[in-house]
This record gives sequence, C-alpha cells and structure tokens, in this order.
Amino acid sequence: MAHLEPHPVHSILAGELVPGSAGEMQATDPSTGEPSGPSVTLLSREQVEAAVTAADAAYASYAATSPAERAAFLRAAADEIDGLGSALVERAVTESGLPTARLTGELARTTGQLRLFAELAERAAHRGVRIDPALPDRQPLPRPDLRVTHMPLGPVAVFGASNFPLAFSTAGGDTASALAAGCPVVVKGHLAHPVTSALVAGAVSRAAARTGMPAGVFSLVLAAGNSPGEQLVDDPRIKAVGFTGSRAGGLALLRRAQARPEPIPVYAEMSATNPVVVLPGALVDDPAALATAYVGSLTLGSGQFCTNPGLLFLPTGDAGDAFIVSAAAEVSGRTGQTMLTPAIAERYAAGSAALQGLPGVTFVGAGVGGGSNAPAPQLISVDTALFAAAPELAEEVFGASGVVVRYGSVDDLLVVLEGLEGQLTATVQATDADDDAVRQLLPVLAGRAGRVLYGGWPTGVEVTHAMVHGGPWPATSDPRTTSVGTLAIERWQRPVCFQSVPDRLLPADLQDANPWAVPRSFDGAPATP
Amino acid sequence: MAHLEPHPVHSILAGELVPGSAGEMQATDPSTGEPSGPSVTLLSREQVEAAVTAADAAYASYAATSPAERAAFLRAAADEIDGLGSALVERAVTESGLPTARLTGELARTTGQLRLFAELAERAAHRGVRIDPALPDRQPLPRPDLRVTHMPLGPVAVFGASNFPLAFSTAGGDTASALAAGCPVVVKGHLAHPVTSALVAGAVSRAAARTGMPAGVFSLVLAAGNSPGEQLVDDPRIKAVGFTGSRAGGLALLRRAQARPEPIPVYAEMSATNPVVVLPGALVDDPAALATAYVGSLTLGSGQFCTNPGLLFLPTGDAGDAFIVSAAAEVSGRTGQTMLTPAIAERYAAGSAALQGLPGVTFVGAGVGGGSNAPAPQLISVDTALFAAAPELAEEVFGASGVVVRYGSVDDLLVVLEGLEGQLTATVQATDADDDAVRQLLPVLAGRAGRVLYGGWPTGVEVTHAMVHGGPWPATSDPRTTSVGTLAIERWQRPVCFQSVPDRLLPADLQDANPWAVPRSFDGAPATP
Repeated sequence: MAHLEPHPVHSILAGELVPGSAGEMQATDPSTGEPSGPSVTLLSREQVEAAVTAADAAYASYAATSPAERAAFLRAAADEIDGLGSALVERAVTESGLPTARLTGELARTTGQLRLFAELAERAAHRGVRIDPALPDRQPLPRPDLRVTHMPLGPVAVFGASNFPLAFSTAGGDTASALAAGCPVVVKGHLAHPVTSALVAGAVSRAAARTGMPAGVFSLVLAAGNSPGEQLVDDPRIKAVGFTGSRAGGLALLRRAQARPEPIPVYAEMSATNPVVVLPGALVDDPAALATAYVGSLTLGSGQFCTNPGLLFLPTGDAGDAFIVSAAAEVSGRTGQTMLTPAIAERYAAGSAALQGLPGVTFVGAGVGGGSNAPAPQLISVDTALFAAAPELAEEVFGASGVVVRYGSVDDLLVVLEGLEGQLTATVQATDADDDAVRQLLPVLAGRAGRVLYGGWPTGVEVTHAMVHGGPWPATSDPRTTSVGTLAIERWQRPVCFQSVPDRLLPADLQDANPWAVPRSFDGAPATP
Repeated sequence: MAHLEPHPVHSILAGELVPGSAGEMQATDPSTGEPSGPSVTLLSREQVEAAVTAADAAYASYAATSPAERAAFLRAAADEIDGLGSALVERAVTESGLPTARLTGELARTTGQLRLFAELAERAAHRGVRIDPALPDRQPLPRPDLRVTHMPLGPVAVFGASNFPLAFSTAGGDTASALAAGCPVVVKGHLAHPVTSALVAGAVSRAAARTGMPAGVFSLVLAAGNSPGEQLVDDPRIKAVGFTGSRAGGLALLRRAQARPEPIPVYAEMSATNPVVVLPGALVDDPAALATAYVGSLTLGSGQFCTNPGLLFLPTGDAGDAFIVSAAAEVSGRTGQTMLTPAIAERYAAGSAALQGLPGVTFVGAGVGGGSNAPAPQLISVDTALFAAAPELAEEVFGASGVVVRYGSVDDLLVVLEGLEGQLTATVQATDADDDAVRQLLPVLAGRAGRVLYGGWPTGVEVTHAMVHGGPWPATSDPRTTSVGTLAIERWQRPVCFQSVPDRLLPADLQDANPWAVPRSFDGAPATP
C-alpha cells in the first residue's frame, strides 16, 4: 500500500495534488519524538487562496445538487476511506501515538458518520421546508403563497482536531455535516497528522470525482503557522468556520471572524472540565468499582478527550474517603500513554504540576510515565473553599489530570456548581436514594452543559440524532448547536422564503410535485407522507 | 379611558410601576413637533439593573412552565392588549405620526402574533425533542438512552423599533417569540413612543399576574440615552438580544455583545434597500400600472418600512422610459406624510438631497412636503456604471427615497446584483417571457436576501410559518434566522441532551409518557401522533 503515501505528500486542491511552494515539513512520531514518514510540502498564501477560489466556484452547482446526488457523494467518500483500511490506521497511529484499536474504531466512526449524513442529506428533513399556501380570498388582504427552504451558507473552512485524526479532522463531523448541508469545504489540515489528512483528502476527492461533484467541493490545505488559518477566516468568500481544539485557538478564530466586514459564524468546540457529581447513594454499594471506572474514564486515551472528566465532586466523610483510597490505588497502577504531540505532553506536565503545587492541594496519587511524551496521570483533591478561591482548579488541563472536590452538603455543592463555566457534559453518579438531590442538581447542570448524564462517564460520544456535543460558553463559541450528531447540519444553512414564485421557477424542494419527496409542513402542520 | 395613561408614566419592573429616579421626559408628537402627553419618568442605572435581577430570578420557574401555561400567558397578553383598544391606537398615533388605520391594523397584527406564538408554545414542536432509545445489546458497546430537548437561553433584552410601535416594539415579534421559548424579557422601551410602550407593558404585566407567571418574566425599562441599552447588553445575566432599527444601532449592540467575557447572540434586523428587478416582460402590458404600484409601495407609511423598495432595476429603452414617466407623475402627485420623529425626517431630507446632488444622477420626480416632519418623497435614476461607482446609491435612506438603476442587459444586471449587500427582500417583476432571465436571477437573489418575491411588493410581511424576515449581513446580524414568523422562536433556545436519565427525573417533554404530548422523533423518524 506504499502508493497511498506519495513521496512527498501534497495538499489536494479541488481534486488536484498541488505541491506546496512554501517549504516542506515532516510529521513527528510522538512515541519516539522523532520525525517520521514522507516529507510534506506546504502551501503558499496564493495556493491557499486558490482553494477558496475553487470552493467559491463550486458553491452554486454543489448547493443545487439533489438529495440523492449529495448522498451518493458522501457514501462514496465513506467507501473510499474504508478502502484505505489498515494503511490509514497505521499512518494515523504513527502520527498521533493513539493505539491501533482506538483508531480502528475511529475509522469506523468516521465512515459511519459520513453515511449517517448521507442518509440525512437524502431524507432532506434539515431543509425545513414549510409551505403556507396563498389565501386569495382572505380579508382585508389576500395572503400570498409563501414557501421556505434552507440553503447552504457558502464555502466553509474546517479546522481539524489533533485528538481525533479521523473523526474530528479532514473528513470528520464538521466536514461531513457541511458537505451534507451543501457547503463546499476547505480543510486546514492539522500538521500533527499531515499524511493521515492527505490520505483521507485523497479518498474524499476521488469520491467527488466519481460522483460528478464540482471539483472545488473539497480541498485540503497543508500550510505552516497560524496565518493560513487566519487567511481562510478572513477570506470574504468563506461563510462559516468549524473548529475543534484549544480555547486559545478557538477564541482567536472567533475574534477574527467577528472583526470581518461581514462577520460569520464560528462553531468552535474548545474546552471543558466535564464535572462529575458523586452523590452519597452512589458510594453505598461499591465505591471501589466506581473509583476504577472513574480513573478508567480519566485516563482513557491519555485523557485527551474533550469530554474527559477533569472535575469530580465527592462527598466528605468515610464513603468518600474510601473512594479516594481506591482511586489513588487505581491511578498509581496506570502508566502514561503517548500523548498526541510533544507540545501537548509538555503543557500537560506543566499544568498538572502547577495544580499539584497550589497551596492547600492534597496529592491523591499518580501513575508512572510511559516513555517519550507519555507523562503520568495524576489525581489531586481540594475542598470547596479552596476550589472557589483558586480559579485555575476549574480550568482544563488537557490530559489525564483529575481534580476531586470534596463537598459537605448539597447546598454547598449547588453553590459551587452554579459558579462553573459552560461545559460540554455534566454527570451525576447517584441511586434512587439521591432523587431529591438530583432534582435540585439537574436544572443547574442542564443550565451549564450540552449533555447531562445520569451514571456512566462522559467519554464516549454517540453519533446519533439526539446527541449534543456542545454547550454554553466557553465550552463552545455557540451554544445553539452541536458538533456531533445530525443536529450539526443546521449550523451550515439559512432560511430563504420564496413568495408567489411560479411553480416552474421554484427550487425543486418547494415545487408542488415535491420531486425529491422532502418532508414538508403546510400551514405549520406536517404533511402526511 | 384616561386611567390607562397614569400621570406621570412609569416603567414597569416585574409587575410593579416604578417611578424612575433619573429625571423625566415627554414624548414628541411628530405631526406638530411639539411635546405631547404625560410626563414619563426615567430609570436610573440601579433601577435598570433591578429589571435584569428580576428576569434572572424568574428564569428557572418560567423555563419550567408547561406548554399550556405559557400559551395561557401569551393569550392573556393578547387579550389585555386588545382590551386597550382605541386608547392604545390613539396614543400610538400621537406618538408615531402613523395613521389610525395603519395602527389599528398593527394592533391586530400584534395580538394575532402573540396568539400565534401561544399556539406554537402549546404545540411545542420548537422543542425539537428527539429520542434515541438505548441499545443494550449493541456490539461492541451498548448504546445509552439519549434524549434531546431545547431549553430557553435565559433572560433576553429586546430593543423595540420606532417604525412599528406595536408589532416590533414592547410586545412585538421579539418579545412574543422569546416569551414563547421560555425566556424572561426585559424591553428597552423606545422613547419615541414611551406611553404606548407603558400601556402595552401594563397589559403584558396584568396577563403575567393573572396567569400566575413569575413577576420578573417581563419588564419595560424607560431610560434615557444609550447607556441603559449598553448596560442591558453588558449584563452577564442577559443571554441574548433582539433589536430592530438602524445599522449603526444594531452594530453597536452587536460589537458590545461580542466583547463580553461571555459573548451572546444578537439578532439585529438593521437595514436594507430591498432591490426590485423589473424584467422586460413586466413592462409590456401596463407599465403605468406597475409604476403606480411601485410608487405606492415606496411611499407607503412615508417609506418607513424595513422592506421599503429603495432600489429598482429597470431596463433601458422605450418601455423603461415609459415606466419612468409614469413613476415621475405618480410621485409628483404624492404628499409627504409625517415621519416617526423629527430626527428621522431630518436624516431623510439630508440623505435624499445628497443622493440627488451626486454628479450624474437624473432627477425623476418628487412630491410635496406635508407639513411638520413630512418631507416629500423623491425618485432619482442612474445607470449601472454610476451605480457601481457611487456606493452611497446602494445605501438605505430611511424613507420614501427611490433609486432607479437602468440596465442594458441581463448580464449587466447580474454583475450589479452580485455586488449588492445582503438584503431582507429581493423582488422580480416578470412574466412567462422572462423565465430564462428569472432562472439566472433567482439563485443570485436568493443568495443575497431572506425573502424572494415574484411579482408583488416587499412591503407587507406576513406572520406565518414560512415567512423569513431576515437575510445575509448587513440586513441582519445573523442570517440563520428570522425576526418574523414562527421560525423566530428558534433564536432563543439551545439543545440539551439527557443521557440515561431515569424517566422520573427527566423533564416532562422527554418522559416516556409524554404528558405534554410534544411532537417527538425516535431514531430520527417522527413518531406517529
């Protein structure tokens, strides 16, 4: 399968391999800290601009594709990516340091996600078609015929995440949902996994070609530094931005997009500490098993999940103490796993050490380092007073760093929870005996998170219709939506109403005959299928 | 009905009349330019803050009201406002200078709108409930039970418009849709119609009291200058903003909301020139009738509609010339009507004079002034070259100022249209003979407007399910939504997913028994009712 990795590796602009004219780089294997794989050419400013030009040129014809055509493209993309198989997984393992089993699962999730969005594009319920027929006899004035559909916003820039080199990257959730909505996509490839990105981009481009899509529907830009991303956000032809990554990175793009002459939406999924609240009932049966499950979630994938449970609220007293003892033993037995990049490992080490060094913090336990870029997981605990006094305890340390906050009463707990920032998730560990407390907690948690769990752990995000991977500021830049699941498609569209337009001139989804069999409502009531 | 206008008039905070401690003012009757009506007390900064405190305190309980309870409140508000009847209309006439017939219609629209949102709140389809049932046997891992609903964002600040003292003001579309979504509302009353605002606020407050709503669900703030509005936008407890007004005003609020530590959505409906494209076929039968209808729409309500057709594209040649002659005659026969405020009349006079004075502009015709604050309507024409060279021709002059752009070919026309900013509406006047041109134009117009009309005139916005009163920047600050029609409710909510939460602890709309009979989907498919 060596032909899948051309030497050197290039960006793919509108279906064409484009050797970058702004130098070369090579990926780092985080498990060794050494350069690895073929050289990667980097695009110049003019070459990045060409990707946007192609996307803009593709917009009108891609936006006009039928539900079946768009679905065929997305399914072909899934098939092409599946076809890369183990060669893709191997490259992703080398570039990310993530285990083979995890990336095999992530590959299935990525292509499953594309197929789910294909189904969505095909069914076209997201077009939100509503028809209010004319009322020519209405008094005092007739009502005109009004028909609304949703149209794609325009070319979209997607910034892939380092921690999901497949499912949140080149052909991840942002790309899949934007393509399903009818928006051409320019991906700013993450340089932590450039060859993985290029392999996936090749698959998407082949799918676009063989399903007859306009070439500019998809491009992958591999370019160095922050300026290519800023250039994409600044380009007036880009109409929305998808981003998954750090708060600093997301905020920078958001501020930039807001400062444009025409501000555009930025959907940045940034950071969270994903509080878990342990109520007394959850400690009655088997606190050791709960502690094991907690440390399992905390250390999964070196803690490099957006939904990592960085904060856990635990009752004071004996049962809580028993949980702590078990958790300490559990974390001490864990070995650090390779983190995504040397820089991330360094930031984790510095951040977790800083927390541990705060006055008043109790060290609970730590595992052992696992070699290159594989720092040890760590667990500390504090009381609610210290937690309230030291805001850094509530900030995300990306990686397997856990803060346990011991609380005395539900009232104390509520005060602390009400002070938390917006989160992706919030979890309650409880039994029936805790119902009264849960009833008090749920509105507070729902007010601060996009997803509220009862039992279970927040790591593990289903790609379904009811999923919300989003939440209030600063977990995301826009709480009105999600970056995982089918609701994500709504981010990339806007409503347009057609008034009294003759049937022959209407977009197909608004025509009386409904040739695409799109779900529609009439005067607010869904039409019977 | 004199008791409806207490002397002096006060703000209403959480159901209580609150005499403002920051001075008094008196409304201006624009038809005379003289002060009119009772004195109005103005709130201090601390008093404005109290309104937000009350809204924040009301949030949790109001958000938890059932669909039926929320609908009862909105219907009661409509009934109470209807009960004000002619006293309200008379006061609005005095304060706005708009004719009685217009305001009688606007009153009916306002209460009809509240009843439509009551129906919407009752049906609760906007909650977007989706349920993905657990799959305990799924391999390799079980799927948890996932249920999503939408919850209200939080307290909302609404800035009423001067040009619709009822339908876009105190209990207008923003207020009705936010209340229907479950958000408490603080209205910053427009000081062009303070007593009208207070009368309506009294009605809404009585409705809240008699339907058992928390008092802070609604407040009207009457306060002077820009700082009270800025204070509302800055307050961390305010979670979204609705605004209808000038571009300068909307932009200022948007920039402020973006600069908050927690940025919030601002839905600002700002300005548009609402291009109308006349194609040759439309001039064949009766260009004089078309010209009459055009001038009718242009001068309706002194041109003070957001959807006023400020730009008209007309073919060069004899048929277009005939249209111009008719339009000139028509506009010359019109008398200016009182504008909303002396300041608006002055800006209109300056703006229309500036356009007329541009080198190369052809004066087409003008009506006569109608007394105090009632400047004459005006019509000018330019060619496409001048239009492209002088950007001010494409900017809104609020009022009855029309710019006719003469174009030579559809290709020339397309170039000009592609250069236009985002619009609320775009209209095509055509017949079957123009179909080829219309097919080229419609995607361009749909790409630049929230509503596309074929025939008819953009003034007149239906309040229905399929209406879009929105559009790309800078017509609005957020093209993804509308400020008129039932889709407007989606502006004020965000999705929250509940994972594996026991039925007894779920919000009612997510419980298995579905006690509120909310429309729901299961695994993406709508449940049969």
